Amino acid sequence: MANPASDAPWPSSAVDTQRLWRRHMTLATHGATPAGGVNRQALTTAEGDARRTLVGWARELELVPSRDAVGNLFIELPGRSDEAPVLSGSHIDTQPTGGRFDGAYGVLAALESLQAMRELGLQPRRPLRVVAWMNEEGGRFAPGMMGSAVFAGRRALDEVLAVRDENGTSVAEALHALRDAETDVPQRPLGGEVSAFVEAHIEQGPVLERAGLPVGVVTGIQGSRRFRVTVSGQEAHAGTTPRAERRDALSAAVAMIAALERHTASPQDVMCTVGMLRVHPNAPSVVPSRAYFSIDLRHPEPDILDHLGDGIAPLFETLRGPCGVSVEEIANSPSLMFPQALRARITATAQRLGIPSNELYSLAGHDARELHHHCPSAMIFVPCKDGLSHNEAESAEPADLAAGARVLADLLWELAND
Amino acid sequence: MANPASDAPWPSSAVDTQRLWRRHMTLATHGATPAGGVNRQALTTAEGDARRTLVGWARELELVPSRDAVGNLFIELPGRSDEAPVLSGSHIDTQPTGGRFDGAYGVLAALESLQAMRELGLQPRRPLRVVAWMNEEGGRFAPGMMGSAVFAGRRALDEVLAVRDENGTSVAEALHALRDAETDVPQRPLGGEVSAFVEAHIEQGPVLERAGLPVGVVTGIQGSRRFRVTVSGQEAHAGTTPRAERRDALSAAVAMIAALERHTASPQDVMCTVGMLRVHPNAPSVVPSRAYFSIDLRHPEPDILDHLGDGIAPLFETLRGPCGVSVEEIANSPSLMFPQALRARITATAQRLGIPSNELYSLAGHDARELHHHCPSAMIFVPCKDGLSHNEAESAEPADLAAGARVLADLLWELAND
Repeated sequence: MANPASDAPWPSSAVDTQRLWRRHMTLATHGATPAGGVNRQALTTAEGDARRTLVGWARELELVPSRDAVGNLFIELPGRSDEAPVLSGSHIDTQPTGGRFDGAYGVLAALESLQAMRELGLQPRRPLRVVAWMNEEGGRFAPGMMGSAVFAGRRALDEVLAVRDENGTSVAEALHALRDAETDVPQRPLGGEVSAFVEAHIEQGPVLERAGLPVGVVTGIQGSRRFRVTVSGQEAHAGTTPRAERRDALSAAVAMIAALERHTASPQDVMCTVGMLRVHPNAPSVVPSRAYFSIDLRHPEPDILDHLGDGIAPLFETLRGPCGVSVEEIANSPSLMFPQALRARITATAQRLGIPSNELYSLAGHDARELHHHCPSAMIFVPCKDGLSHNEAESAEPADLAAGARVLADLLWELAND
Repeated sequence: MANPASDAPWPSSAVDTQRLWRRHMTLATHGATPAGGVNRQALTTAEGDARRTLVGWARELELVPSRDAVGNLFIELPGRSDEAPVLSGSHIDTQPTGGRFDGAYGVLAALESLQAMRELGLQPRRPLRVVAWMNEEGGRFAPGMMGSAVFAGRRALDEVLAVRDENGTSVAEALHALRDAETDVPQRPLGGEVSAFVEAHIEQGPVLERAGLPVGVVTGIQGSRRFRVTVSGQEAHAGTTPRAERRDALSAAVAMIAALERHTASPQDVMCTVGMLRVHPNAPSVVPSRAYFSIDLRHPEPDILDHLGDGIAPLFETLRGPCGVSVEEIANSPSLMFPQALRARITATAQRLGIPSNELYSLAGHDARELHHHCPSAMIFVPCKDGLSHNEAESAEPADLAAGARVLADLLWELAND
């Protein structure tokens, strides 16, 4: 594939490994935890501070920041035409015990790509727009992928704005507070035509690291279903209430979670996680009256995911005893494959740069899952240490981050000049 | 048994059913919940307000309020001598989903007894002192019975002051805030000689209601052991971390709680409750790295309680899988029997008043358990609706509350003149 502006250098030549690394460390100060990780949940003050830092970098580079009604943040390198832009980015919110790279890398690699073009005096034909999608993680407001799903028309804005966190704060209220701190960032309309979306991300698994490859081309994303289960019992005295008269919500929930593990034990690659469980009133001498827990179920095969997911509510009904149970499905994302043409372009770009790569499947969900239904989308993975993510010890090598950013920079330049 | 001041009326004749009921309703406004219950946990603002109300009633009756270093609140009717006082009371803290009678009744029945004597112009030989023990419930600061245990010399003041709630606030800090709001209540030394302690309380079980008896004489209290269990795993991504590589703390905790139910299934009258469970980081897409839960184990037979309690740590060790587990015993209270002589006096008093009563065993723990090791102690139960307690729907009949208060008033008068 030829350089789209053959008299100009490729932007990969101006990607700066040290600068890219430093920006990760700077962003990680917002929400930094004592253990070296990041707690920067969606629409918190820490995330607001990280957004200010991004906007500051954009202004230094004379790139144009903007935001939309659902709180997605954009940074644009204007094109020579007003054709549909190419988007690239990820998210900067984290899990409560998150790391410095999950999400941040995709945003900073895209920003590095635009800076490289700026420094080389390259202006693309189409606008190139960095994006930090609002609330990918879903730890505070569930389910995640909110900003990308609303942008892609896959979820309604009103529905998302009404979601509340554990303390009763709604997305609308949290967005309002954020908006007050960003009055200098102009608002753009939601959605709009996009010519392509590319998301760079750490792998969050061990495949690339074990294979010694700095870059992975993502073939697709495994399907996932998310549930919320409420078990209702009755408060009672822990010393005086005979066992036969108890309606112990936690006891019933424990039976359900234990049975869920057996239900999802086969095939071996089913991922089933109960990550969140809340008990009410949660007092040692009171029989619990309510247990509320999450189920995160994933598998690449739609048939298996359908079968296992559909079996949960009937299974729990047999285990509720004297309690009530309700099983609500809050998200169902089928598995998907990214377009072959775009994947082949990433592989070719890496090859031309002499960067070893291979295709691999993503077990984690990403904003590209939502964009896939809106425009041609693709993902570039880089390795992370021991495959560890959603953990404060999450780590990655500066050279690998830079390799991914170089592939991304050249790919974006090509796509923006197609 | 003769009236100790034979020319004087018995104080039971001045016990006022309506006034006693109204005081319960007034006290229940402090920490009132929308569902008609009370959330007035130890050393909260709500409990501080309730203490102000008690002190206000004391002042109206020219009774003398005081407090000690662990936050126990006293209201004294001075005696004609300075012999060791007779104490009577219970607690006014509640569970997060507590009711209007658990604890409050014992304090208000004792206050009603003193008011009856005041109105009849009766002055006892020994001082009579109403007491509201600090933190009986243990929902906020665990374990409970703090004030009575420190008063009775069964726990060290320093150790209790260092206990922290879920938000990191210590008992010492919470007491300090309370002290600032009670500068007009003089402090008295901790502990001291007591000639007798009598605690009135709702039964928190169905025995009296089913038998149609307004008063129960408590024979003893079943033993209890309280544990805190910490399971340690590792945070990991819920979509990408293979099952075999997970160290899921909640999954291990669920296996332990399920096994605990089997371990304590026999004999049938074992009470075993996991009322509190906290998960970290408690995010739907993160494999939990920590689960922390309580075990409340009770049985009347010391051998059975020893055997079952001692088996918990070894059992959990076999179930921890790749996680760590630590089992800490935070309280061990053997079963006890109250002195026969004092029980017989309560029965005789009820008989003289024509109030039907019977002896019964307490499955719940009470402050009298601690005082039992300090001075002759006894308990008077009254029925509560459906045996329900530690529940916002907890209820009792005004006539039953008054019947118990009449027995208490005469008993206290006798004991104070012995």
